[in-house]
Amino acid sequence: MSRTIVEPPRLHAALRQSTPLVQCLTNAVVSNFTANVLLAVGAAPAMVDIPGEAGTFARVAGAVLINLGTPREEQRVAMREAVSAASTPWVLDPVAIGVLSVRTALAEELLALRPTVIRGNASEIRALAGAGAGGRGVDAVDDVESAGGAAAALARRSGGIVAVSGAVDLITDGSSTVRVPGGDELLTRVTGGGCALGAVVAAFVATGRARGVDDLEAVATAHAVYSAAAERAAAAASGPGTFAARFLDELAVTGR
Amino acid sequence: MSRTIVEPPRLHAALRQSTPLVQCLTNAVVSNFTANVLLAVGAAPAMVDIPGEAGTFARVAGAVLINLGTPREEQRVAMREAVSAASTPWVLDPVAIGVLSVRTALAEELLALRPTVIRGNASEIRALAGAGAGGRGVDAVDDVESAGGAAAALARRSGGIVAVSGAVDLITDGSSTVRVPGGDELLTRVTGGGCALGAVVAAFVATGRARGVDDLEAVATAHAVYSAAAERAAAAASGPGTFAARFLDELAVTGR
Amino acid sequence: MSRTIVEPPRLHAALRQSTPLVQCLTNAVVSNFTANVLLAVGAAPAMVDIPGEAGTFARVAGAVLINLGTPREEQRVAMREAVSAASTPWVLDPVAIGVLSVRTALAEELLALRPTVIRGNASEIRALAGAGAGGRGVDAVDDVESAGGAAAALARRSGGIVAVSGAVDLITDGSSTVRVPGGDELLTRVTGGGCALGAVVAAFVATGRARGVDDLEAVATAHAVYSAAAERAAAAASGPGTFAARFLDELAVTGR
Repeated sequence: MSRTIVEPPRLHAALRQSTPLVQCLTNAVVSNFTANVLLAVGAAPAMVDIPGEAGTFARVAGAVLINLGTPREEQRVAMREAVSAASTPWVLDPVAIGVLSVRTALAEELLALRPTVIRGNASEIRALAGAGAGGRGVDAVDDVESAGGAAAALARRSGGIVAVSGAVDLITDGSSTVRVPGGDELLTRVTGGGCALGAVVAAFVATGRARGVDDLEAVATAHAVYSAAAERAAAAASGPGTFAARFLDELAVTGR
Repeated sequence: MSRTIVEPPRLHAALRQSTPLVQCLTNAVVSNFTANVLLAVGAAPAMVDIPGEAGTFARVAGAVLINLGTPREEQRVAMREAVSAASTPWVLDPVAIGVLSVRTALAEELLALRPTVIRGNASEIRALAGAGAGGRGVDAVDDVESAGGAAAALARRSGGIVAVSGAVDLITDGSSTVRVPGGDELLTRVTGGGCALGAVVAAFVATGRARGVDDLEAVATAHAVYSAAAERAAAAASGPGTFAARFLDELAVTGR
Repeated sequence: MSRTIVEPPRLHAALRQSTPLVQCLTNAVVSNFTANVLLAVGAAPAMVDIPGEAGTFARVAGAVLINLGTPREEQRVAMREAVSAASTPWVLDPVAIGVLSVRTALAEELLALRPTVIRGNASEIRALAGAGAGGRGVDAVDDVESAGGAAAALARRSGGIVAVSGAVDLITDGSSTVRVPGGDELLTRVTGGGCALGAVVAAFVATGRARGVDDLEAVATAHAVYSAAAERAAAAASGPGTFAARFLDELAVTGR
């Protein structure tokens, strides 16, 4: 079943009003950009990712992001702590799983704890679904549509939403599927373009739940808002550096 | 007693001439932005924060910043090492203390070692003074003026300066108080806006001491320079992304 | 013997076509900027730096960067693992060695494993060659030309290339030397300006080897491309913040 989504600015406006607190246990490369994206979009980032604090904070956060990009030992402990404590929605971003053993084992362990949303590129989703060997780092080697079956199977197995990023994003709950076109190739030239989307997804799901919007629609709306901002930013940019700055500007006006 | 400050560009020019070496043991989210802010303002950043090196470096640094935003175990050891070794001024930024147990205990331990300056938002200052429960992450829930009493008490207890950031910043040594208005709301939309100020404060205190400027005035000058740059940057920005870039540009011209 | 280099855009175009996978075990301050520089230049960054994964990834990466800026314990283990596993070229950036004991010992240990390229400022190169006491943090206290003898001696000892960054960069294999002028002072006002160059060097050496270009020329080409982009970026910038954004833009067009 194919679904369409309501006007994204409406949910984005609600997000701004509620300023959801999004706890991020994310990779070291993109933590700054992710926090700035969350601030721009209207959420409140909190990168609380050490043992002894991650669980405490997860109990008050509106949503939690678990991103496996640089899973140092201390952070892995904190991730388990946060997911165990969280009663709020949480997003799993299985960065570069497949070949790399530490994160792949961790992703499978976390998958069993039923993430609200799993977000990744086609290679990562196929790898987590057991249908592929993974990509080379964060590159999306596989095509989004080719991962549609794996995404749906993974959604049914996890009981949550699976979102696959690419030229056209695909979001599925295992029975219904939404496709979000748009965005811009420049977003793939900024490190953390996909990782920060995971945090935005967390913010929208938290907002959606408080407004009676189902998770599938909230995730798709996050993707749509993100893609629209990227398109506008690209129109004002002269390359990936100015694009990144403009992208934050555009995320800050979307939905106003 | 209320104090005014001398023309900020003069001390900033002195800072540029001396290029104070500021060692930062700061959080992972803002280390890049903090280093860029220090470079822009004319200081020399050095993020030396591992055990076995932090103490060695603290003995040659002009000032030290201790920021508790992401206090991993190895960094906590290095923080203790740096503070014990430092004979130079050091700044404590008790990010998000109150509810989170690891950093709150560490902040109290470090407070006993008498930081030259404590910098934070109203929630954090009240929490460190024992007058509040802390905020939610890095958000300033409390109002600056409401934290004035706690700030003064904390300054008297630590024997140093306490600076509270907000719409109007409040800086006190426990008897005299300086208020620094200005700045721009966009600074709160860039992650590390407050954290990087802590590093700038360290640079100004180091510079001030070499020029016979007392710490209270040096801290207030740092806030004034920072706020003025934010105002000019906001005038040239179209949102938080372009603001961050322009803010660095403006910090680099201030005081020339 | 003094050498000249072929037209840099040609090798840069080849780099873009091959998208070399560059594994970075780099410091926490500059990992984001380094990844963005690699993406802009046309390479694929992968910051895989934890034990248990670093070696696995080094076997598939096109080149590896080892940067000693913030060498936490876990990363030090991963560095040894990556270098031992890598059969591809690897670059050593001995950030701030000399006084700081942990990184200095590690640099000497890694030097014995014969890095393909050693890149640093004059102080660092002199310190690694045993001819100086090191600088103060990442500052280049020594002059590039004064480090020429130390660089050549270090190249002969390591069997690789040594590149010294400064107003005029000096690249040597111990017998031939290439000097690359240009660049812009603003590059020294952006944290990671030198660190990210190490990653670009890695990308160019990987590309050069596949095209029959010798390492000395590939390293010099990387420096030339980097400097040219900095010059163009500086012309469009109003300070270090806008420079950093423009620099990424310019790296993305170089060689097209």
